[in-house]
Amino acid sequence: MKIRIVQSILADNTRLAARTRELLGARRVLAVNMMSSPGAGKTTVLERTLPYLKERHGLSAGVIEGDVEGSEDGLRIERLGVPVVQLNTRGACHLDASMVAAALEDLPAEGLDLIVIENVGNLVCPAGFDLGEDLRVVVLSIPEGDDKPSKYPAIFKKADALLINKIDLAHHVRFQRERVHAVSRRLAPAVRIMELAAATGEGVAAFGDYLAQAAHAKKERR
Amino acid sequence: MKIRIVQSILADNTRLAARTRELLGARRVLAVNMMSSPGAGKTTVLERTLPYLKERHGLSAGVIEGDVEGSEDGLRIERLGVPVVQLNTRGACHLDASMVAAALEDLPAEGLDLIVIENVGNLVCPAGFDLGEDLRVVVLSIPEGDDKPSKYPAIFKKADALLINKIDLAHHVRFQRERVHAVSRRLAPAVRIMELAAATGEGVAAFGDYLAQAAHAKKERR
Repeated sequence: MKIRIVQSILADNTRLAARTRELLGARRVLAVNMMSSPGAGKTTVLERTLPYLKERHGLSAGVIEGDVEGSEDGLRIERLGVPVVQLNTRGACHLDASMVAAALEDLPAEGLDLIVIENVGNLVCPAGFDLGEDLRVVVLSIPEGDDKPSKYPAIFKKADALLINKIDLAHHVRFQRERVHAVSRRLAPAVRIMELAAATGEGVAAFGDYLAQAAHAKKERR
Repeated sequence: MKIRIVQSILADNTRLAARTRELLGARRVLAVNMMSSPGAGKTTVLERTLPYLKERHGLSAGVIEGDVEGSEDGLRIERLGVPVVQLNTRGACHLDASMVAAALEDLPAEGLDLIVIENVGNLVCPAGFDLGEDLRVVVLSIPEGDDKPSKYPAIFKKADALLINKIDLAHHVRFQRERVHAVSRRLAPAVRIMELAAATGEGVAAFGDYLAQAAHAKKERR
């Protein structure tokens, strides 16, 4: 009984995610699902990357902010002049496709080149839910430790890109980058790994260029 | 239908947690549920605190290690000469009372003064599940940011103690301690807040003394 109901929710999620994918495919808007532990720096990465995308590549982003409670991250994005919808899951440990579909109704239909969905800070639950995205970006910050891909493999397995953030703190903590690279690549052989420090801006351009390339590729897709 | 089943699981969890509480009450063994984001430093805190408890207070601990996958943390505890049971949740985002009850069967029945249950790294899911513990300890590390109590209130609301870890990194990141203290106390007025750096050992004695006092209080309870 329990299994049937879980399957039914997941089946529904898959159907709704497919509809979002179709909708954004028709509009040629890139959708990015950003996932990490709490405090890995997803919002700070966006604060640095979205202005870069606009200035360097002329690309306009919208953001869907997922949080258990509060609107602090949504306000940070709004201050950039970027359209944003703040979702509160009220206890749920991840976003699902129905939440994203609802949020999309509140984002401008025209003029966006990409939509970034910032998931709830959690290395476990978000891995199981397709949101209709084109790219899954996992952010791991240096102070969290180099054991995270081994301990939370499901989310690293699904990563198209892995951002190793807070490299400005690398001198102050023990962290074997080689271990993270090796385990991530074993879990996701095609993963694109980028190292950056969103707080200082170091390495942000490479991530911005990566997103710009993906957004352009989607525009040119037939 | 969905709601009935969730209630039924939670009811079962409450019943099993009560049984664990009764069992450990009869044995006068303190049970501690440690919760945090991935990488906040729970295991490192234990590596420092458990030898201190033994040497300074003559108290013997056992550990139940909760991880989605792997046994890395269990091995770290085992190296201390501390009895440990490693649980793998295989995808579940928290421990529940049935997992803890099963693990207790594998820990020595005699000679332990306290049992520390290290929950799955997650700031959302573990808040909802009583494991039969006496104390709930939440660990928040400085690099995660001072916004975490506001964004994940449920877990901070349940904290008997809040450990602010990695204070050795406080000079390198923005973090308003006053904000964390204020929001935590608003959520849990009786919370005991301690600041420490498990990596260097700073502040570990205060947490050890806090646990020792609670373990002694439980022994003397009638």
